Amino acid sequence: MRIDAIDVYYLRMPQVLDIGDGSQDATLVRVRAGAHLGWGQCEASPLASIAALVCPLSHSACKPVQDSVLGERVESPEDIIAIGDRVRANSLDLLQADHMLSGIDIALWDLLGRARECPVWRLLGYAQAYAKMPYASVLFGDTPQETLTKAKAARAQRFRAAKFGWGPFGRGLAGADRDQLMAAREGLGPDGLLLVDAGTVWAEDVAKAAERAQALKDSRATWLEEPFHTGALAEYASLAAIAAPVRLAGGEGSHNFHMARHLIDHAKVGFIQIDTGRIGGISPAKRVADYASARGVTYVNHTFTSHLSLSASLQPYAGIARDEICEYPVEAKPLSCDLTRERIERDAAGLVHLPDAPGLGMTPDPATIARYLVDVSIVVAGREIYRSPAVSG
Amino acid sequence: MRIDAIDVYYLRMPQVLDIGDGSQDATLVRVRAGAHLGWGQCEASPLASIAALVCPLSHSACKPVQDSVLGERVESPEDIIAIGDRVRANSLDLLQADHMLSGIDIALWDLLGRARECPVWRLLGYAQAYAKMPYASVLFGDTPQETLTKAKAARAQRFRAAKFGWGPFGRGLAGADRDQLMAAREGLGPDGLLLVDAGTVWAEDVAKAAERAQALKDSRATWLEEPFHTGALAEYASLAAIAAPVRLAGGEGSHNFHMARHLIDHAKVGFIQIDTGRIGGISPAKRVADYASARGVTYVNHTFTSHLSLSASLQPYAGIARDEICEYPVEAKPLSCDLTRERIERDAAGLVHLPDAPGLGMTPDPATIARYLVDVSIVVAGREIYRSPAVSG
Repeated sequence: MRIDAIDVYYLRMPQVLDIGDGSQDATLVRVRAGAHLGWGQCEASPLASIAALVCPLSHSACKPVQDSVLGERVESPEDIIAIGDRVRANSLDLLQADHMLSGIDIALWDLLGRARECPVWRLLGYAQAYAKMPYASVLFGDTPQETLTKAKAARAQRFRAAKFGWGPFGRGLAGADRDQLMAAREGLGPDGLLLVDAGTVWAEDVAKAAERAQALKDSRATWLEEPFHTGALAEYASLAAIAAPVRLAGGEGSHNFHMARHLIDHAKVGFIQIDTGRIGGISPAKRVADYASARGVTYVNHTFTSHLSLSASLQPYAGIARDEICEYPVEAKPLSCDLTRERIERDAAGLVHLPDAPGLGMTPDPATIARYLVDVSIVVAGREIYRSPAVSG
Repeated sequence: MRIDAIDVYYLRMPQVLDIGDGSQDATLVRVRAGAHLGWGQCEASPLASIAALVCPLSHSACKPVQDSVLGERVESPEDIIAIGDRVRANSLDLLQADHMLSGIDIALWDLLGRARECPVWRLLGYAQAYAKMPYASVLFGDTPQETLTKAKAARAQRFRAAKFGWGPFGRGLAGADRDQLMAAREGLGPDGLLLVDAGTVWAEDVAKAAERAQALKDSRATWLEEPFHTGALAEYASLAAIAAPVRLAGGEGSHNFHMARHLIDHAKVGFIQIDTGRIGGISPAKRVADYASARGVTYVNHTFTSHLSLSASLQPYAGIARDEICEYPVEAKPLSCDLTRERIERDAAGLVHLPDAPGLGMTPDPATIARYLVDVSIVVAGREIYRSPAVSG
């Protein structure tokens, strides 16, 4: 199989709001090799990623991503990994390349799995895909009362764990955050798992984060996620010591294997959270899962959007029984909810199971693509180098 | 002063070749605040950077760069730093944002310096701009003989130091690299400074790099630059021990302060090389210079293109007398050579001096911009969100 085409679809809701909800648009990728198709999704700015795909050559280490992918052979997992290596080398100085590559790598695994009629997790070497325990990903309410209601709703919906993030958290006084945390704990009940996402709100200010440490302990949070920018390794390590036994979680901003490794080696995170739609796809994500596993760090997916992304994000650690927590989007916009014909639904016990189906087991719905497709044209020196592709099945 | 406009010009040579020469195109930035102008340049893919500037909102942490800049006040260095912080927070999930920000940050320092009739290095707190000793940046020849000729030519042009990079180096057998290194040493003479740039050719393979260690020592190289990908911190540290007394250099791939700091803290580089056109501009570059200086690590600019970029790249460490080596482009394409009316020429002793002039002291030539301007149009959902700006003085 040789890669004949990479089609990137920019989808978005009729209205995109200035809120912390990444499911309002999508960068959907379809790769074609002969009669075979594969689908993937980048968690990234659609327009900037499209530009990374098609931009004119700048120099030998700043090539458009498509130049390292089109025409390449895909017969094995090693071929996919080699394509990623080519992209990273040829697009070393094209910063957006990692995000664009993510959707392509995912689509290639899907394509290979479909062609071989084999689930991706099996291609990755796992004999089994273990059930995962999803936590509800919800935004903090504007008030503690609203957060309490959300936490109770999560339990009522059979979620044993819930992650609260963004919203007002970390932006006001520490006392207000304590009220939010206690409301979440109350709503989840004593046996619920409370996960907290600070959304890098403290940038690199350890003192500000430390002001919340006691409330995190008192509310018995399992983890505190992204107190700082992904690069603030020393600050992470300082806070890890202060916040124990609450462990730090981070990694969603990693756009290559190395960044995730630095968080494990130098930031002392207890949970490494990887978005396959950003880190360069399933290939580097699997490498992180192996690396974390060998060091007693728990791997968790980061997913806030479609069930295509959800499936892709679960594959890299599907076979690691011990790492059972998973993120599961519950407030995604219709664009993201309706993107795939299949869905990964929770069972009676509230657990989820990766499909035992070829590839990722997810088929994008042409009607959804058509409904939300944004028409984009990029013309450089009189030549149209990108036009939104046609929708087809 | 309030920022009224950000104009980004995509310039390129009539022919862009697949070679390791970043001076074949340019992402030129002009910022306007009332009657005041400032100029900067990103070392980045022009189209991908333009997309990062103007792309539609995806969510609250994935905003187009311009949304965090337009309308902001610029009265002081602190204002410029605050604008960078805003961009990084609001465009957290827009990977290309750091590269686009770089040109804007540089242009803002230029604008503030012009408005105050003060050189940027003085705005940065330096009382004096020390002379720097440029090394010639040249590509390895295809043969040792060609490299010998290039090294002799560098000496003949009054360069005491020369950096050889890319080309065939590291791609073939270690013996061939030894011949290249010895040819360079012979051409430079016994008192020349030989700097070697591996251009990440060994990715993360310490053994392959180590095969060249003895030849680097025998040729008395001052530094070995970028043996690995910027993120391969542990591999850097391993090689640093093997290669001593040859010291490692790296950092040009850093797109924020943290990445440079990781190279200093964990990769054990002896030279930290910063491209102000990638790291987010002069603001984070100055922060790196301060951090390195406090730890005995030598700061060096990374510059391969125009004299606008050269001036911007020298400002962050202008006042550090001890860090005297600087990169100086000698093989840049006409687009880059002719971009500015002023140039930073070497004096009789072969040294360079930053202009004691307002801002960066560099004025782009409208004729050069007009000659190399690429016409770009980006249309999203029927609305043209970017069109190449008009050329004016």
